[in-house]
Amino acid sequence: MAAEMVNPRSDSTSGSTSGSGEGADGVTGEEPFDPAFALHRGGKMAVQATVPVRDRDDLSLAYTPGVAKVCSAIAEQPELVHDYTWKSQVVAVVTDGSAVLGLGDIGPEASLPVMEGKAILFKQFGGVDAVPIALDCRDVDEIVETVARLAPSFGGVNLEDISAPRCFEIERKLQERVDIPIFHDDQHGTAVVTLAALRNAARLTDRALGQLRAVISGAGAAGVAIARILTEAGIGDVAVCDRKGVVSQDREDLTDVKRELAGFTNKAGLTGSLEAALDGADVFIGVSGGTVPEDAVAKMASGAFIFAMANPNPEIHPDVAHRYAAVVATGRSDFPNQINNVLAFPGIFAGALQVRASRITEGMKLAAAEALAAVVADELSADKVIPSPFDDRVAPAVTAAVAAAARAEGVARR
Amino acid sequence: MAAEMVNPRSDSTSGSTSGSGEGADGVTGEEPFDPAFALHRGGKMAVQATVPVRDRDDLSLAYTPGVAKVCSAIAEQPELVHDYTWKSQVVAVVTDGSAVLGLGDIGPEASLPVMEGKAILFKQFGGVDAVPIALDCRDVDEIVETVARLAPSFGGVNLEDISAPRCFEIERKLQERVDIPIFHDDQHGTAVVTLAALRNAARLTDRALGQLRAVISGAGAAGVAIARILTEAGIGDVAVCDRKGVVSQDREDLTDVKRELAGFTNKAGLTGSLEAALDGADVFIGVSGGTVPEDAVAKMASGAFIFAMANPNPEIHPDVAHRYAAVVATGRSDFPNQINNVLAFPGIFAGALQVRASRITEGMKLAAAEALAAVVADELSADKVIPSPFDDRVAPAVTAAVAAAARAEGVARR
Repeated sequence: MAAEMVNPRSDSTSGSTSGSGEGADGVTGEEPFDPAFALHRGGKMAVQATVPVRDRDDLSLAYTPGVAKVCSAIAEQPELVHDYTWKSQVVAVVTDGSAVLGLGDIGPEASLPVMEGKAILFKQFGGVDAVPIALDCRDVDEIVETVARLAPSFGGVNLEDISAPRCFEIERKLQERVDIPIFHDDQHGTAVVTLAALRNAARLTDRALGQLRAVISGAGAAGVAIARILTEAGIGDVAVCDRKGVVSQDREDLTDVKRELAGFTNKAGLTGSLEAALDGADVFIGVSGGTVPEDAVAKMASGAFIFAMANPNPEIHPDVAHRYAAVVATGRSDFPNQINNVLAFPGIFAGALQVRASRITEGMKLAAAEALAAVVADELSADKVIPSPFDDRVAPAVTAAVAAAARAEGVARR
Repeated sequence: MAAEMVNPRSDSTSGSTSGSGEGADGVTGEEPFDPAFALHRGGKMAVQATVPVRDRDDLSLAYTPGVAKVCSAIAEQPELVHDYTWKSQVVAVVTDGSAVLGLGDIGPEASLPVMEGKAILFKQFGGVDAVPIALDCRDVDEIVETVARLAPSFGGVNLEDISAPRCFEIERKLQERVDIPIFHDDQHGTAVVTLAALRNAARLTDRALGQLRAVISGAGAAGVAIARILTEAGIGDVAVCDRKGVVSQDREDLTDVKRELAGFTNKAGLTGSLEAALDGADVFIGVSGGTVPEDAVAKMASGAFIFAMANPNPEIHPDVAHRYAAVVATGRSDFPNQINNVLAFPGIFAGALQVRASRITEGMKLAAAEALAAVVADELSADKVIPSPFDDRVAPAVTAAVAAAARAEGVARR
């Protein structure tokens, strides 16, 4: 569900000139001269040394024999690995290529451009080094085992574009195995940014979260995580809908995850369709694709919030949404209020790494959402309930809040 | 046996000032103010973006939606992963921490400084990006399986500091599983550089390899690989000695690897001690540590070559070796003729990646040795049978030779 992070400016990414000759050596796609191909040639990232290796004196410090003393010190005092290696600055961006953007199951190699993109966003927005790891395996336990074996080399693991419901089990089992943060961004990044936007929308319209009834369209990775964080944040009620309608306890076709979801959502006991659930609802959150008919939107409560985050086509087009809603957000960068994960994951990991957190707790996610919302709390308008991805106040604020929350929750190691 | 790559300038790496306050936050080792600790603080490497991510237009190309087209193209034409990601520029430097430098089995975390050091040498000397991967597992098949699952993300794998005889089996099984080069540097890097030095020593003294009888002290990773490459290069005879003496077919205590070794080495049918084997030998190659008595050295043939590569203490001190040998080499940077793996691995991988080789063949290693030797072929002297690690002609020469050999051997994919 990383498709939430989309900027669908197709005008700037198709059919224009590049002049770099893509296609000459094998690109036979429909847009061989697309500037995206020119930009991607040779990949989007590199490694660099941060210490000099110019002469034998340098070499004797950075490599043998100097390095041996550092190794011995870590062998004696394992926590020194955080001080004297890049472990606590580097995150593995791990996928199995099973649910990549809106493209679905395209496998590990084809997912690499997304993982590289994620890695450079980590660096650009959070100052966090990140390494793309696309795994050639699909079994839940094999993925867990593989990533657990990699854990000594990394300060955290960002799971990405792994299909539901496997993603839930992988994250849970892996966090039980290792003492570094495991964070499935398609779930929690989306949830944090959504909550931040919702907090500010409520603040703007002078309502409390407890007064609001929300409907989520989509019970995949993002939908489940959003339902969870909204519940923790004290939402009045939230109903999650999959293709068959509201996830409710009377349904007999539920997966384990949806059954759990039915247990803590839908206090109102709704059954039936998404459209029916929207009748009188205060909040619509779309993380599913598909289209919601305008007559269903029209039945929402007055002053509603519509966060239609499917890309490139929002479940409710902003032009329609604005007819009925007080606040409208999308996943697109060409409309106001873009719900973009890049507002969350760089700062969340930067904060967790800063204090060497062993995990990312619910409290840390809530703190991230609060801090993200606070960045624009004094500038609120219907078109600004969430900061721009390029607002450089965001990452420092989220980082500080997450680090403080990690300390408060007892998962910090410094 | 990565200890071969040592520069034992202990004068520059102990007891001097650093002023950076190591020790204040936990370094309680015996040399808390060692400059090696100051240099290692925060690690030695970082990731950088090679494309801009300044604004939403950049983001729309490097991340969604632009990236989706690149992913789709790779899904349709898998070989495009080499063109549009960093895969074919990046090597995984993989260890299990079981045989780190001369420190032995210190585990994955404590091995990380060495792996980072190796990674920056890849970059500095070969322009190859490299990522340290220290694995938390020891079983041969588990390591093979884990690295095979990582293979989609990397253009090659440099195995490092994995104990013998596990290293042999891991390399072989892994190369059977994946279509990217697997290269255990402690074996082959050492072997390539040793062969290069030996070729030039022979050239300098006007002898053919076929005339030479060599004795190798050490039947671990390096010793086995050196025996193999010298045999392939046409050495007259080579006897390999472990702690019990010459590895010979009549011995009943041999591991599988040593039994194989006994099958293709020791044409002379020597038995008994290293010292006895040295009687009349033309070449001594030390990759074991320990000390060879001077009276044994004195019995070598006139005009001998002594490559005593143990660190920090060569098996035969150069001052002693020079009394009897025409050419003397060590693993140390403070004597002439340093046998240093950094002369080989950066160019070998750069060449293999350049042509997208599926493996590194024996022919590619021989070509690397030949090219390395040729760099100083017109400048030969007893003190210069091998280039300096900082000779900037080395990596380009090795790269070109390895790429050409890969094409000649049919393992290149471009």
